[in-house]
Amino acid sequence: MKGVNIVLLGYGNVGRAFLQVLQEKREIMLARYGLDFRLHSVFRQGGALYSPQPLAVKEILEEYAPRASFQKDPDWYQDLGLEHVLESTDPGVLVECISSDKKGGEPGLSLISVALERGWHVVTADKGPLVAGFRELFERARSHQVSLKISGATAAALPTLDVALHSLAGTDIYQIEGILNGTTNYILTRIREGAGYPEALAEAQSKGIAEPDPSLDITGWDTASKILIISSAVLETEFSVENMKIQGVDNIPPDLLDQGKKEGQALKLLGKLSKKAGKFQLEVALEVIDSSHPLFGVDGIDKGITFYTDTMGAVTVTGGKSDPRGAGAALLKDIIAIYQRDI
Amino acid sequence: MKGVNIVLLGYGNVGRAFLQVLQEKREIMLARYGLDFRLHSVFRQGGALYSPQPLAVKEILEEYAPRASFQKDPDWYQDLGLEHVLESTDPGVLVECISSDKKGGEPGLSLISVALERGWHVVTADKGPLVAGFRELFERARSHQVSLKISGATAAALPTLDVALHSLAGTDIYQIEGILNGTTNYILTRIREGAGYPEALAEAQSKGIAEPDPSLDITGWDTASKILIISSAVLETEFSVENMKIQGVDNIPPDLLDQGKKEGQALKLLGKLSKKAGKFQLEVALEVIDSSHPLFGVDGIDKGITFYTDTMGAVTVTGGKSDPRGAGAALLKDIIAIYQRDI
Repeated sequence: MKGVNIVLLGYGNVGRAFLQVLQEKREIMLARYGLDFRLHSVFRQGGALYSPQPLAVKEILEEYAPRASFQKDPDWYQDLGLEHVLESTDPGVLVECISSDKKGGEPGLSLISVALERGWHVVTADKGPLVAGFRELFERARSHQVSLKISGATAAALPTLDVALHSLAGTDIYQIEGILNGTTNYILTRIREGAGYPEALAEAQSKGIAEPDPSLDITGWDTASKILIISSAVLETEFSVENMKIQGVDNIPPDLLDQGKKEGQALKLLGKLSKKAGKFQLEVALEVIDSSHPLFGVDGIDKGITFYTDTMGAVTVTGGKSDPRGAGAALLKDIIAIYQRDI
Repeated sequence: MKGVNIVLLGYGNVGRAFLQVLQEKREIMLARYGLDFRLHSVFRQGGALYSPQPLAVKEILEEYAPRASFQKDPDWYQDLGLEHVLESTDPGVLVECISSDKKGGEPGLSLISVALERGWHVVTADKGPLVAGFRELFERARSHQVSLKISGATAAALPTLDVALHSLAGTDIYQIEGILNGTTNYILTRIREGAGYPEALAEAQSKGIAEPDPSLDITGWDTASKILIISSAVLETEFSVENMKIQGVDNIPPDLLDQGKKEGQALKLLGKLSKKAGKFQLEVALEVIDSSHPLFGVDGIDKGITFYTDTMGAVTVTGGKSDPRGAGAALLKDIIAIYQRDI
């Protein structure tokens, strides 16, 4: 049995779902993987929980509602910085679930760096730092001989990097196409079924699929950031979101709308890495695909990705829960992968 | 850079395709994974190639046609037993590509055991030994601290075990459904398009999709063996093919045929692990699925598998080349996975 210290950064929907899964899976983690997780700290805006002795996950989830402050219980709450906590605790895994800035990647970029430099592994669901500083972060992880795992930021419960790096090891991946955003896929599915764009968006919002401010999804940024991170990890490409051609679903050309409604056709928002004249290009594009396309049946909030390879042909993965619980489970999966090497 | 000694057992379509991929990928293996493969021996019925110095893969492929004997070049050919070769060479990987008996799993069962006991890792595409002696072989691998990897025997280029054990680590998989045999899926697809069964089978044979003796495929044995091995590996179930309910495509009830031809429906041969009253049951069944099923679009010689989990929802993988080249690439992938732990 191996004790694994955990520090959680972020107590929003994903952070809470992660703790929930951690709690549910406690027995299985011990029995199946020999891992004994010890949560020492939870950080969020406006406070932190910290204890040198492992915290009771169940109690935290019961005591602290999503938007409550941690300052309720003065014995628990201590105004400690992350650095101090990481230095006072034997290195384990920092679980990063905050929403950093989409441009500079802060504060995630700095906070992940702080952890890596102190010998902590990091698993993250935060795209900002990876879009802004992919190479920098992975070089930092390598030089400190720790792992940085990013399933949570690359479609979470839908396995993307695992499949590309592990299941397709040794192949030459020359093209990637992904439906990587549940909100836009839901909107496009509803439009195909006859809804108008404003109606489909309002529906997605009322069902909690789209954020109250859905702009990062509908303008294609979320898809762009995911395909960019995937392509950086799988093919070591060096793109920036600023230089990508990005379409969204907020302004669909009428001819595409019509074409996508035809029998055996569907309009999809694809994150796409392809080769033109020997050079990779990365874009987010509205495309009408037909029923022979492996992503044709990926409807509603579902996601999917196809890798085109030389020796194994095209391999497609679809599904995976598009919700905080799926993201929490993906963070846990990454932690297991880090320690499975040792057990 | 790490030298990896290879002994190949079997020089049929898959064995040759493996060598072909090994040859093509030589540079990439060195550059990307730091692995330097050294082929020392090729065994087949009626002869073996062996050299203490690495053999030239390209030369072997050019000199020895699929059905030629290895006895052409008396300097190369030596009538050595596998044990002797494994004991004279520093342990590396035995690549097992023969077709063992479907009942007792021989000779693969004994030959894999010989290798594991001498500290060799084994990657295999041979289902017989795994159906007959799954536990025995994995216990032997564990006790000798070597790896036994079986992607080649579990749908090859379609990742099945990787996804279940790695991408879905930490989840509770409570159901598995797979279209695991290209020949039967091709026949069912052609029947849906209007062909009769004898016509569809003849077509599959003339295209080289079905074996000259297609009985293992069309009676469902191949699907049964794959779902049995997958379920043994993922959920540690203990089934035997003899006790499974197995349907094939050689005797399809007319009402299923009719139903499967309706719009939005398809008749599929599914390998299926499910739970009834808390107990797992394993079967191969003809089932009519509708267009909302994640395997609905898997047509022709394609394969696919869906894992139903508690925390990540349903995750489906489809595609992967259904040919010897895809199988050869899957064997190589397993070898990379064995050594990636060390590099």
